[in-house]
Amino acid sequence: MIPGKAKAGGQPVRILGIDPGSRATGYGVIDCQGHALTFVTCGVIRTSEKKPFPERLEEIYDGIREVIAAYKPQLAGIEDIFTAINPRSALKLGHARGVLILAARQHGLLLEEYSPTVVKQAVAGYGQAPKEQVQHMVRVLLKLVASPSQDAADALAVAICRANHR
Amino acid sequence: MIPGKAKAGGQPVRILGIDPGSRATGYGVIDCQGHALTFVTCGVIRTSEKKPFPERLEEIYDGIREVIAAYKPQLAGIEDIFTAINPRSALKLGHARGVLILAARQHGLLLEEYSPTVVKQAVAGYGQAPKEQVQHMVRVLLKLVASPSQDAADALAVAICRANHR
Repeated sequence: MIPGKAKAGGQPVRILGIDPGSRATGYGVIDCQGHALTFVTCGVIRTSEKKPFPERLEEIYDGIREVIAAYKPQLAGIEDIFTAINPRSALKLGHARGVLILAARQHGLLLEEYSPTVVKQAVAGYGQAPKEQVQHMVRVLLKLVASPSQDAADALAVAICRANHR
Repeated sequence: MIPGKAKAGGQPVRILGIDPGSRATGYGVIDCQGHALTFVTCGVIRTSEKKPFPERLEEIYDGIREVIAAYKPQLAGIEDIFTAINPRSALKLGHARGVLILAARQHGLLLEEYSPTVVKQAVAGYGQAPKEQVQHMVRVLLKLVASPSQDAADALAVAICRANHR
């Protein structure tokens, strides 16, 4: 981590943050120039549990590819969750993460994985920060007028974390 | 399951079986015409643990797409493993299964998932059959002169299971 090494007048770096889930995958895109962070977009890719799982995986994959194609980020971060969940949940989440990581790789994004603790530390200065505090700090750091949804806020937090670790 | 419903003189159905793994993914392709099963090909997509995980996922995805493009199966089966493994292993396996299921879906394959017990039952008539017996029965059922590797044999067993359940 070499914060401030990028020149303020240099080209901004565009960063995609991903909070993976088989039902809801949050994404957030920010620009980063020196220490300055600028909000670009955020949203959630939702899939219906009524649909067959292969179809849902394709929706997640196509969804993140659309975001990447539209906003052309250079760097990406994805949340790495593997604690306190059972094998069945982990397997399902793994499928979603698999197609998301594949999409990032196919677009040549420099992808890093961060544990929730590291992400919370990056935005709230405290690895055990509650979700509401993360959501609040994302809003403050990106000067947003309204709070993004929980999944989108988590994705923006991952993007901020990726900016700090670039 | 309606075995024997297809006419012996009808078009053969080509079936892909997949035994997923992040290090080694077995695949097997068979033709099925009435009750007759014919071996087409089998193999293993191996990835190096020294490579970054996103690169390995792309190799698994590209590998199975090559198999599908070359052999053009219409049906597919994939082994569903989620018992007796820890969340970390389940998450990793989930990533591999995710990109494999995505590839099958993108090619319009009719994919079904089978537990190891159901697969063993299909080839050995006994859900708790040891691996060696599965390997042996695959060889007998497909009239192979030599035993395929363990991962390839497991994939062929999944293909046979898919044939029985079509």
